[in-house]
Amino acid sequence: MNFIEKLTAAMRKNHSLLCVGLDPDQARMPPKVSVADFNQAIIEATADLVCAYKINFAFYEALGDDGINVLKQTRSFVPGDIPVIGDAKRGDIGNTARAYARAIFDYFGFDATTVNPYLGYDSLEPFLQYRNRGIFILCRTSNAGAVDFQALNVESGDNKRLPLFQIVARKAAEWNTQGNIGLVVGATYPEELKIIREQHPDMPLLIPGIGAQGGDLELTVRYGVDRHGEKAIINSSRQILYASAGKDFVPAARRAATELREQINHIRETSP
Amino acid sequence: MNFIEKLTAAMRKNHSLLCVGLDPDQARMPPKVSVADFNQAIIEATADLVCAYKINFAFYEALGDDGINVLKQTRSFVPGDIPVIGDAKRGDIGNTARAYARAIFDYFGFDATTVNPYLGYDSLEPFLQYRNRGIFILCRTSNAGAVDFQALNVESGDNKRLPLFQIVARKAAEWNTQGNIGLVVGATYPEELKIIREQHPDMPLLIPGIGAQGGDLELTVRYGVDRHGEKAIINSSRQILYASAGKDFVPAARRAATELREQINHIRETSP
Repeated sequence: MNFIEKLTAAMRKNHSLLCVGLDPDQARMPPKVSVADFNQAIIEATADLVCAYKINFAFYEALGDDGINVLKQTRSFVPGDIPVIGDAKRGDIGNTARAYARAIFDYFGFDATTVNPYLGYDSLEPFLQYRNRGIFILCRTSNAGAVDFQALNVESGDNKRLPLFQIVARKAAEWNTQGNIGLVVGATYPEELKIIREQHPDMPLLIPGIGAQGGDLELTVRYGVDRHGEKAIINSSRQILYASAGKDFVPAARRAATELREQINHIRETSP
Repeated sequence: MNFIEKLTAAMRKNHSLLCVGLDPDQARMPPKVSVADFNQAIIEATADLVCAYKINFAFYEALGDDGINVLKQTRSFVPGDIPVIGDAKRGDIGNTARAYARAIFDYFGFDATTVNPYLGYDSLEPFLQYRNRGIFILCRTSNAGAVDFQALNVESGDNKRLPLFQIVARKAAEWNTQGNIGLVVGATYPEELKIIREQHPDMPLLIPGIGAQGGDLELTVRYGVDRHGEKAIINSSRQILYASAGKDFVPAARRAATELREQINHIRETSP
C-alpha cells in the first residue's frame, strides 16, 4: 500500500481530514508529564479522529540528548493504519539528501515527509525513490515571510509571469511521475490555496495554518479539497495539544479534535 | 568575540581559507574505526590547517540511535579557537525556527549555521537573534538542480529582472544589520560566485563544491575572496576525509589538507 492509499483509507475510515501536529512545547504542557507520555496520551485520545499525524523534527531536536529517542517513540505510538508525516523540511545536495531520506524513511519509518524545493530536483530525487512514501514539497508556506520569495513574479518561459510558488507547484507536478508528490500550502493564504487546487486538482495538499496561525477554516476546506472532498490534510497543532494545560488535557484534546473534525466535515459536506 | 571575528582570527592564525567538512560515510571509512574516533583523528590531524570545520547534520541523523551523540562529540573535539559551522540548512516558520535555533546554537553550540531562504525573513529571524553566531543563507548551491529555481529570472522591482539567487543575496544584505549573515555559493558556478562577490564585497561566503563535486579551485579562490584575500570559506569534505581508506588515513588527510591549503594560498597570493 502506498502513501496515498494509506492516507485515503485513514480519511475514509475515520471520516476525517484532520491531521494532528505533535509539536511538544514544554512551557504549555501540563506539569510533570514527559513529552513521550504527553504525545502517547494525545495519540490515544485522537487516533480515531484523524487522517494523519505530523511530527515536526525541530521540537524534538530542541529537547537535546533525548530528543531523537522521544521522536522515535512518538512515531511508534501511532497505530499502523494511520500515516505519519515527518515534518523535516529538508533540502540538501544529492549525497546528503540520500542520508536525510535514509534517516526519515528507513530509520524513523515515516510514511511521508516535507521537503524544501530551493535546491531543485536532485535534492528531492533521493526521497522520490521511496515510491511508497509521500513527499510534500513546500509551495506556499503559512508564515508572513512566505511573501519574501514565494510570491515574487518569475518568468515562466511562455512569455508569462507567475509567482514562484506556482512555478514550484508546476515543477512538482512534472516530477510527479510516480504519484508520490504533494504540496504544502498554508491556510493563511486562501486565494493562493484556491489557485493551487484549481491547477492541481488531484494533488494531495498538506495545509497548516488554521487555529493559532489564523487561517480561515471555511475557505481552507472549500478551496483545499479535491472534487471528492478529499486529498486535503488539514493540520492543527496547538489548538488540540494545548486545549487545556491542566490535568484534563486528554479529554480536552479529544473534544477539540472532535469539534474540528466535525466543523471540517460540515464545511465539506455543505460546500457547493 | 562574534563569529566573523573568530573566523578571521582562525584564518590568520592558520593562514588558511580551508574548511574541512566532517561528513562521515562509513562505506568509505577505514574498517573498524568508529565515526567519532574517525572524526577526532581527522580534527587532530588538520586543526592547524583550517579556518573552520563544517558538520552536516544529515550524515549524523542517518546513523540512527547514536547519531546525535556522535554529532555532539564531534563538535566537542574541535579546539575552541576554530569556528564550527552546523550545516543543517533549516527553514521553518517562526516558532519552529526558534526550536531549531535553540538546538543548533544552544544545545550543540555551533558558531554558525546554514539556513534555507525559501520561507523568508521570519524563518531566519530566530537565528539572527543570536548576534554572535553566523548565519549562512543558501544562495546559489553547488548541485545541478540549483538551476531549477535559483536561476529563474525574477522581477526585481526596478523594472529589471534578476535571477532568484541574486534577489536572495540582495535581501540577505538588507537583513544584515548586525553583520552576522553570510551566503552559501557553490564553487561549481564560478561566474555566479564572481557576481555575488562583486555585489557583496564584504560578505563572508561559504563555498562548497571543489574536489568531488568538480568546482574549479583557481576561479573559486580568485572570485570568492574579498579585497583582502579573506572572507571565503572553501569547504572540502571527501577529498580530505577519504584521501586514503586504509590505516594511513590520518597522515593522508593531513597531506591532502596541507596541499589544498597551499594551493589556495598560492592562488590568493598570486591573483591580480
